[in-house]
Amino acid sequence: MRIDGVPYRTVWVDPEDGWSVRIIDQTKLPWALEIVRLTDVPAAAHAIRSMQVRGAPLIGAAAAYGLCLGLRQDSSSAAMERDAALLAETRPTAVNLRWALERMLTRLRNTPAAERERVAYLEAAAIAAEDVAQNAAIGRHGLPLIEQAVKPGARVNILTHCNAGWLATVDWGTALAPIYLAHDAGIDLHVWVDETRPRNQGAALTAWELGRHGVAHTVVADNAGGHLMQHGDVDLVIVGTDRTTRRGDVANKIGTYLKALAAHDNDVPFWVALPSTTIDWTVSDGIAEIPIEQRSAAEVTDVTGRTADGSIATVRVAPSESPAANPAFDVTPARLVTGLITERGRCAASADGLLSLFPEQRRSQ
Amino acid sequence: MRIDGVPYRTVWVDPEDGWSVRIIDQTKLPWALEIVRLTDVPAAAHAIRSMQVRGAPLIGAAAAYGLCLGLRQDSSSAAMERDAALLAETRPTAVNLRWALERMLTRLRNTPAAERERVAYLEAAAIAAEDVAQNAAIGRHGLPLIEQAVKPGARVNILTHCNAGWLATVDWGTALAPIYLAHDAGIDLHVWVDETRPRNQGAALTAWELGRHGVAHTVVADNAGGHLMQHGDVDLVIVGTDRTTRRGDVANKIGTYLKALAAHDNDVPFWVALPSTTIDWTVSDGIAEIPIEQRSAAEVTDVTGRTADGSIATVRVAPSESPAANPAFDVTPARLVTGLITERGRCAASADGLLSLFPEQRRSQ
Repeated sequence: MRIDGVPYRTVWVDPEDGWSVRIIDQTKLPWALEIVRLTDVPAAAHAIRSMQVRGAPLIGAAAAYGLCLGLRQDSSSAAMERDAALLAETRPTAVNLRWALERMLTRLRNTPAAERERVAYLEAAAIAAEDVAQNAAIGRHGLPLIEQAVKPGARVNILTHCNAGWLATVDWGTALAPIYLAHDAGIDLHVWVDETRPRNQGAALTAWELGRHGVAHTVVADNAGGHLMQHGDVDLVIVGTDRTTRRGDVANKIGTYLKALAAHDNDVPFWVALPSTTIDWTVSDGIAEIPIEQRSAAEVTDVTGRTADGSIATVRVAPSESPAANPAFDVTPARLVTGLITERGRCAASADGLLSLFPEQRRSQ
Repeated sequence: MRIDGVPYRTVWVDPEDGWSVRIIDQTKLPWALEIVRLTDVPAAAHAIRSMQVRGAPLIGAAAAYGLCLGLRQDSSSAAMERDAALLAETRPTAVNLRWALERMLTRLRNTPAAERERVAYLEAAAIAAEDVAQNAAIGRHGLPLIEQAVKPGARVNILTHCNAGWLATVDWGTALAPIYLAHDAGIDLHVWVDETRPRNQGAALTAWELGRHGVAHTVVADNAGGHLMQHGDVDLVIVGTDRTTRRGDVANKIGTYLKALAAHDNDVPFWVALPSTTIDWTVSDGIAEIPIEQRSAAEVTDVTGRTADGSIATVRVAPSESPAANPAFDVTPARLVTGLITERGRCAASADGLLSLFPEQRRSQ
């Protein structure tokens, strides 16, 4: 997508040197557009762990490119496996981080060491290109949901949680892809942007990318969505997911479950957009089986933003002696999900629904 | 309750001059304990509007004392009615702000102007004393709910939203009154404190007052409660309310409804603690009938806290050009409320339940 008219992706190989990896440091958004140059595996792992890059699809692509950087320094099998393990442990919940690394390893284990670097860059580029194509397809399959919500004389109000926009992917986004397509098609729409505590990805990232694209939006506290739905101010909810179980449970940013409950209670359609790489076919019961990443308490007690004088500052909102807990994701059971939007089309959030779109997975039942 | 061993209330008449009104400036908590001296109606109105005092019961008592300050300057009926109107419009949602003022006016309209000041201070003191007694009674009636949740070898986990502690009342608190009593009785308990965006009353006030009293607690993002309940980490929820309808709908801080949905979905008891002054017997359907205060967008986009160097700073978390909306309350329908804890006992969240405790209200049906 574009930033001030300039087309960007969220991860790319530096066109000047042909090997180093460039990312947008998303921890600096919305205040500064800083491009970071990654040259080794620790830097790539740091970028993922510190959430300079975040969002399930982008994490996968960034990890794939991170492995390329490692192979440039040491293309032995031992080094490759060690690097992959290091990258894999940066974020425990993101299934397609491991998917991307496994795909790279599968391709590279049968490749002679001398050719691995070249092959790895090609494979990482393929992962990135496929993500872009997948997200564009998700946009096309989600667009009819917004078109159907159009009422004469009224804008379509869509609520989203966290950031599942182009910043969370290589390009286009997942939950926001249908929104960008609908906006570009001239549909009068407006997005309620959940702030998304504790890291404020909604207020900082979703609001920023929607604003840069010219999409009408309003930031609200995460607490507000239920009230908005009670009063008919939300026509549909679209969120992303970090991990989807084979029966359609979705692990997404903490608080997603609460919005799904409110949508269900108010008959508001609740859709989840995902590339199929996010589906973990080995898991059925998301609540029982998906380990939830516990992040730093400081993310809850401290808030970073811009002061009136333009500097970036971090302030603590809780008393110094009060502890905090920070589960980063929650699981929305499939019964609360109206449907899934994938690159192959829409389906019910159920094993049958998913298998209707991905029949090749029947063999793994 | 006590702060560092010193007993406090949240509003009191200055013992030195015998007429000015002292409050704790709650906008400065948890970082500084600042006592503000109020000497006229505009100052009292400002204190309520700017949330130096907040919490339904405290607002009522503060408004009553504010009227006293006005009568000191001009005890005419015209001035009294004008002052009451000014105080009443400071917070549109709080029903017992208007209840307290109406009680004062009923007493004072039949009082000769020359005696009004003296009578007003007595009446305001009575309102404050009754609030303290009511909250202590709420504590006693809520205590068995916590006692029943005790399991051998495990602490009782209670989740609360916003601040319905002693800072929100004249003393004791509503939702926290049973918790203080249980803690003092030696029950091993722990409180999940919802941060309560956008004003962070949980992180700033509830965490502070629980900490000062020695109650174990953990601050969590508002988004986390559903996840905690899914995993059995919440034994019961107790919240306060700003306004309760005759059939048991409760208007409370924005986001309460989402927690009630999660509690219902996970079979976690969801109790609402309230003094009967919070009941609006003229209203039945809370969602349709209760006007919701829309507060400043800056409360959502900007966060105030303490920097590492100890100064208080405000940072903006959303892009400069992104608008925000800020509904301050939502309505939890009675069907999601396990029961109400009042100064007269516990009851079902229903017209029959409330009338069983307040039979004198049958005449207003």
